[in-house]
Amino acid sequence: MVHFLVIHGPNLNLLGEREPAVYGTATLDSLNSTILAHAESIGVSCETFQSNHEGEIIDKIQKARKTADGIILNAGAFTHYSYAIRDALASVKLPVIEVHLSNIYAREEFRHHSVIAPVCLGQITGLGQKGYLLAMDALLDQIKQ
Amino acid sequence: MVHFLVIHGPNLNLLGEREPAVYGTATLDSLNSTILAHAESIGVSCETFQSNHEGEIIDKIQKARKTADGIILNAGAFTHYSYAIRDALASVKLPVIEVHLSNIYAREEFRHHSVIAPVCLGQITGLGQKGYLLAMDALLDQIKQ
Amino acid sequence: MVHFLVIHGPNLNLLGEREPAVYGTATLDSLNSTILAHAESIGVSCETFQSNHEGEIIDKIQKARKTADGIILNAGAFTHYSYAIRDALASVKLPVIEVHLSNIYAREEFRHHSVIAPVCLGQITGLGQKGYLLAMDALLDQIKQ
Amino acid sequence: MVHFLVIHGPNLNLLGEREPAVYGTATLDSLNSTILAHAESIGVSCETFQSNHEGEIIDKIQKARKTADGIILNAGAFTHYSYAIRDALASVKLPVIEVHLSNIYAREEFRHHSVIAPVCLGQITGLGQKGYLLAMDALLDQIKQ
Amino acid sequence: MVHFLVIHGPNLNLLGEREPAVYGTATLDSLNSTILAHAESIGVSCETFQSNHEGEIIDKIQKARKTADGIILNAGAFTHYSYAIRDALASVKLPVIEVHLSNIYAREEFRHHSVIAPVCLGQITGLGQKGYLLAMDALLDQIKQ
Amino acid sequence: MVHFLVIHGPNLNLLGEREPAVYGTATLDSLNSTILAHAESIGVSCETFQSNHEGEIIDKIQKARKTADGIILNAGAFTHYSYAIRDALASVKLPVIEVHLSNIYAREEFRHHSVIAPVCLGQITGLGQKGYLLAMDALLDQIKQ
Amino acid sequence: MVHFLVIHGPNLNLLGEREPAVYGTATLDSLNSTILAHAESIGVSCETFQSNHEGEIIDKIQKARKTADGIILNAGAFTHYSYAIRDALASVKLPVIEVHLSNIYAREEFRHHSVIAPVCLGQITGLGQKGYLLAMDALLDQIKQ
Amino acid sequence: MVHFLVIHGPNLNLLGEREPAVYGTATLDSLNSTILAHAESIGVSCETFQSNHEGEIIDKIQKARKTADGIILNAGAFTHYSYAIRDALASVKLPVIEVHLSNIYAREEFRHHSVIAPVCLGQITGLGQKGYLLAMDALLDQIKQ
Amino acid sequence: MVHFLVIHGPNLNLLGEREPAVYGTATLDSLNSTILAHAESIGVSCETFQSNHEGEIIDKIQKARKTADGIILNAGAFTHYSYAIRDALASVKLPVIEVHLSNIYAREEFRHHSVIAPVCLGQITGLGQKGYLLAMDALLDQIKQ
Amino acid sequence: MVHFLVIHGPNLNLLGEREPAVYGTATLDSLNSTILAHAESIGVSCETFQSNHEGEIIDKIQKARKTADGIILNAGAFTHYSYAIRDALASVKLPVIEVHLSNIYAREEFRHHSVIAPVCLGQITGLGQKGYLLAMDALLDQIKQ
Amino acid sequence: MVHFLVIHGPNLNLLGEREPAVYGTATLDSLNSTILAHAESIGVSCETFQSNHEGEIIDKIQKARKTADGIILNAGAFTHYSYAIRDALASVKLPVIEVHLSNIYAREEFRHHSVIAPVCLGQITGLGQKGYLLAMDALLDQIKQ
Amino acid sequence: MVHFLVIHGPNLNLLGEREPAVYGTATLDSLNSTILAHAESIGVSCETFQSNHEGEIIDKIQKARKTADGIILNAGAFTHYSYAIRDALASVKLPVIEVHLSNIYAREEFRHHSVIAPVCLGQITGLGQKGYLLAMDALLDQIKQ
Repeated sequence: MVHFLVIHGPNLNLLGEREPAVYGTATLDSLNSTILAHAESIGVSCETFQSNHEGEIIDKIQKARKTADGIILNAGAFTHYSYAIRDALASVKLPVIEVHLSNIYAREEFRHHSVIAPVCLGQITGLGQKGYLLAMDALLDQIKQ
Repeated sequence: MVHFLVIHGPNLNLLGEREPAVYGTATLDSLNSTILAHAESIGVSCETFQSNHEGEIIDKIQKARKTADGIILNAGAFTHYSYAIRDALASVKLPVIEVHLSNIYAREEFRHHSVIAPVCLGQITGLGQKGYLLAMDALLDQIKQ
Repeated sequence: MVHFLVIHGPNLNLLGEREPAVYGTATLDSLNSTILAHAESIGVSCETFQSNHEGEIIDKIQKARKTADGIILNAGAFTHYSYAIRDALASVKLPVIEVHLSNIYAREEFRHHSVIAPVCLGQITGLGQKGYLLAMDALLDQIKQ
Repeated sequence: MVHFLVIHGPNLNLLGEREPAVYGTATLDSLNSTILAHAESIGVSCETFQSNHEGEIIDKIQKARKTADGIILNAGAFTHYSYAIRDALASVKLPVIEVHLSNIYAREEFRHHSVIAPVCLGQITGLGQKGYLLAMDALLDQIKQ
Repeated sequence: MVHFLVIHGPNLNLLGEREPAVYGTATLDSLNSTILAHAESIGVSCETFQSNHEGEIIDKIQKARKTADGIILNAGAFTHYSYAIRDALASVKLPVIEVHLSNIYAREEFRHHSVIAPVCLGQITGLGQKGYLLAMDALLDQIKQ
Repeated sequence: MVHFLVIHGPNLNLLGEREPAVYGTATLDSLNSTILAHAESIGVSCETFQSNHEGEIIDKIQKARKTADGIILNAGAFTHYSYAIRDALASVKLPVIEVHLSNIYAREEFRHHSVIAPVCLGQITGLGQKGYLLAMDALLDQIKQ
Repeated sequence: MVHFLVIHGPNLNLLGEREPAVYGTATLDSLNSTILAHAESIGVSCETFQSNHEGEIIDKIQKARKTADGIILNAGAFTHYSYAIRDALASVKLPVIEVHLSNIYAREEFRHHSVIAPVCLGQITGLGQKGYLLAMDALLDQIKQ
Repeated sequence: MVHFLVIHGPNLNLLGEREPAVYGTATLDSLNSTILAHAESIGVSCETFQSNHEGEIIDKIQKARKTADGIILNAGAFTHYSYAIRDALASVKLPVIEVHLSNIYAREEFRHHSVIAPVCLGQITGLGQKGYLLAMDALLDQIKQ
Repeated sequence: MVHFLVIHGPNLNLLGEREPAVYGTATLDSLNSTILAHAESIGVSCETFQSNHEGEIIDKIQKARKTADGIILNAGAFTHYSYAIRDALASVKLPVIEVHLSNIYAREEFRHHSVIAPVCLGQITGLGQKGYLLAMDALLDQIKQ
Repeated sequence: MVHFLVIHGPNLNLLGEREPAVYGTATLDSLNSTILAHAESIGVSCETFQSNHEGEIIDKIQKARKTADGIILNAGAFTHYSYAIRDALASVKLPVIEVHLSNIYAREEFRHHSVIAPVCLGQITGLGQKGYLLAMDALLDQIKQ
Repeated sequence: MVHFLVIHGPNLNLLGEREPAVYGTATLDSLNSTILAHAESIGVSCETFQSNHEGEIIDKIQKARKTADGIILNAGAFTHYSYAIRDALASVKLPVIEVHLSNIYAREEFRHHSVIAPVCLGQITGLGQKGYLLAMDALLDQIKQ
Repeated sequence: MVHFLVIHGPNLNLLGEREPAVYGTATLDSLNSTILAHAESIGVSCETFQSNHEGEIIDKIQKARKTADGIILNAGAFTHYSYAIRDALASVKLPVIEVHLSNIYAREEFRHHSVIAPVCLGQITGLGQKGYLLAMDALLDQIKQ
């Protein structure tokens, strides 16, 4: 069975509570439930993971190379400077789709640049929680090819 | 019935023939068929349009404000400098999703910056033709809210 | 009789409807009427022209070299990148005044730079529709010298 | 009765004598006479003021908030670095129009950037002494709205 | 028989009339005659084309992929920002030589950078009308290899 | 009772030992004692925390949103690149004052820019250990308003 | 008796009236009273000074080298370009604390850089009028060392 | 007995598996064996350490100040942004040699800049696993001086 | 008789007292005496002037156009930003030599750029008080030509 | 008889052996033979010269001002930084055509900028050895005018 | 027998005398003796060469392609701008190791960038004369592979 | 007897012939005669030297450390990029004065930056041949101190 790892980066555990005008009012638990339900509906197994620690995210990505068929990553603010996460993604040979809840290109200048985008398959931004589900569809599509 | 306009920018008419290593071997006709089939499957009507002329794309966007509920736009190379298309998108009050077949962040420096992204709802890059279909799903989702 | 050509660039045909907080609620037809009335009042003949096509604006400027005594140009977003329009202006030997409805220096960074300003006689920005009328006064003044 | 303050910045007292190829041969006295005559013709009272001292210009702007209905400012070279004048303009709540005799966008690089433009209503450049008169017309127009 | 397409970009139709100190006094018709005569002399057929419309130039380049063996392109001001023309050149698989009448490296800063040069075979600048003839010689040389 | 959280970032545990010419000879323990004594003297309770781990600092900031009335943060070198800490500060709705022992503006270029300053109430730099105490005074002042 | 000089730069005389959302509603007189009361309470004498003239501020700083034990300086907009004030501060050998009422790092780009910070002891920003009082405390602390 | 600490940064635990074209096929275990054998051969004791966590690397560097005579550090991607590791290195007073397996100056732009190099004794890049052994030789040489 | 004006900019009145390691221990009075003595020895009359006020320096330069044959200017920190002084120098038609006591190219980055140099005849830096005397010799030489 | 000097800069003596994928397999001797044969065919005399020494190239250019009617220069890597060669070219009053075998605009960033181009008549790049022959034709054309 | 060429660039002939705080007190002769002794000890033959002339260094590198198995190059200040030396290194197919006596990353900004590093095997900096010996070891290691 | 070395860099041998509008019509021989006559008049011996070869200038500077008491250097275009000459000047411990005939700050952008200025005593620009004589006076002054 195809298996996905969905990683939520720093401060995404505060979803629903954190700047709701930008990120919406649904919590991370609710987002994860939606993700898992969608996984079931498209016939893939799925694990979700959140951490505020860059090192834990790197560890998780590394371990996924033995267990997962693809990664969906919302690296939060790490998106803009964590070359270490970028290297981790490049080190494992899995397809990765980068997701952002908000349209990062319509926000502060520093959010316009993703250091991890060049090593991902693709990027989905600004489509809210729906973005994760679309990423799962695309990843499955890619793996089946 | 919800109606979408899908716009393909310059050189996308050569799809299938143009740099197939980057853009794939399917033609624009084939892509449009896939798009229309998907539209039917999700119950929306859809028009596709391609032009190598910036002015025609602006005209088309402007007209859509009376006829469409949302726009899916792959502006091709205009993405990187056409502030006039950006202004057209900002002038009509429709939700717009920007799509790119390839991962523009893994290519030449000049392709890393989209002047239209700040006025779009969101962006989907690097997921090939699937990206258009995901954009349609997301747009429908957005309109139904 | 002195003859002026007034050119409106891309998206100005949506005037009144487009971002009224920035551009006001009067339509392009109403602006053109005001312009023509003012022309009559100062004794000059005047033609107005709008296009979303860079090439049509260049064609129009080129033709004006045989028919007009001066040009008033609001190039819209082309202001910020159309070196081709700049070259057209430099090629014809007419005095040109650049007009912008809004104060472009109080808006997004990319609007602070005009590539056509160096080849114009002068620039009037931020004074709304009045700016066109002032430009006509100044142009007449210049031609009479 | 509507009252305007016209401020001339550094070196404008040498008008007529200073680089006549750029600034023309009319003196500041002559320019001021033209301005006052025009004021009379449009029914506004008007005071003119020149200083080479940034501090005096700031003092004058501050005092104007109790006495004038609008300001016309040619800040000369202060245009390009005096954030203190900018703050003074932002502190008083009067409409301000920035005027330059020459086309600053066709001269040295450093003259292309105005630090005061973002807090002004608008800007008129390159139209010589006529620019002041147009600014008065526009200011009156604005105040009457 | 070897067939060449020679494309002249915006404002080149004013050749002879436009800034003669920079571009010379010969008209476009005269240049085209010279080009066609040279084509005949080296035994190739040749079509010339001029447009002020970026989109028409893209269309022309695309069509050439079925009819021409090589392209000579003076993109005028589009040279400096038309990534869409660049993509068109990269999409067709013909050898292209970029020509400029004047030495663009001895003029304004913005003319020093060509966005199309990286996808051309080579570039000839500053050699006036002779540059087109040399480009034809080189293109023929290249095709014969 | 008003409660403050004082966070010391990376390498501040070496205080007293680390570059004493820059940071002084008092240890972190001694600094914390001074802080707690001052807290008592102004009638607030206070917790101090030090970590070399960005993730732990983010976790701590997040937890503080339920327990503290304000945060005093010396983020050490994280000041200059941790957009994740910035997002954590923006996510909790507490007033935050940024403190630096040394005058960061008189040191290496990279220390002149704080990525967290824009989401803080204010910043105190260069005043040594006294800076923490002043921050406590200011924070109390702010909370009481 | 320890003596302080408190300098308020350009436009601070409009305090209370100028952009109250940014600077608060208390006037400069009221701020000065608060400062003098605080001085008395900590046993130092204090003089306050305001000017819109860069030269007067330089003169004042120079004179202070014979009369004051420390300077508290809110240089207003001069903060961002007056290298002459910076040199004056470096020329006198007094400790100087830079104060800003608002958080300059959360405002326009040009306010993020202080040319005088490198020659000051430290900086307090964003803490409103309280910032001046904290600066007095810190300065006294420093002088007593 | 002289004691060295060898630190491997993020993703180096995947050595041998990760991009073997760049980093070679030997594993981290094998590299560590080679390092320890070389240590023995030159008569120094040596500890190796790997972590994907910036904070753990900082902790390790700090502890080394009591136990080691020198540090050999391959900070992986942290090289390019971890000012916190830089500060840790500057805080302990040990000689440090920076090592990179690949030639970072022949790779992506972001890898050309090391934020830790200025506080190290020296740097060895591009010489593969041999680089670690050379660094040990140099460090011993330095300590013996 | 040839007449020179020597202008000393901000903080030069503290000469001898201000950063003697950089500027030497001789006072401005002593420097002026040396200048006047040298003037006498080469047979020119000379006036010296110092001000911390940009506006006064501009006024002085303007007046000199009627009374002096040349200007020697050490604009102090105004050198680096006073475009108003630059314009004053360009407005009067006198030869000007820029002098700096210290080698501004061996000091802080901001001192490497002189905004007034392009409108001066020449520049003498780093030669201490001798620089003024050399400037007088050169100015006399120039005037006599 | 018209006389040309053809100068080959550093490393061109390795032609045929050096990076043949970029520069082709013909040697410098063979290129020079081709050049001389072409010279003969168009009735000009010609000298070729190669040096790895910037100074020798400058000496050669200087001497040519008395002996040659035009120069063809492939300055190799000196193209990108030798302002001394640029000055030499500007000092002699001969027409110069800059030639590059490869398309320098399709290679490393540093090769995109020629410091000598602004003082040459024109530039031919990317056309291999043919470029030299075309340059000779153009030079002859120019001289005959 | 393996043969190495060791090249010392400009000003290295003054070693021992030149800025001894940076470069040490040993002379170039002494360094060369150390190098030759080490060569003997590892069983390779070795030639050392020093020149202040960029052209001579290029000539030497070119000749080495027939005689040496590897090059050790300390290009001195040429490191930072000699693209001609870079091209020479790329033209010969020998492994090259770049050596610097001092830690160039801890010195002036201009020394942080090496234009030759991208075409070398690796780089050793900051390890004094020992760096040359390590480079020899590494080069031998590389050649033996 | 005090001994000076005067070095003229590339293309200065063409003085009188080269761009006379910029550099004057006197030849290098005539300049050298003037220099030697002035040397005699102030009682110093003097050698002049010109070369177009960077290496020869470095060699000459190095040799001067044993024979000269000071150097006057007009490095011509080497001024703007020869870090090797800069290092040579820093290596010898003689006072050096940099001279330029023209005002380099009023010419092309690339001439505004001198890489050798930071290691010289001072700089004299724009004063023509007189500049050399002034430099000699200043150098003598400096040596006598």
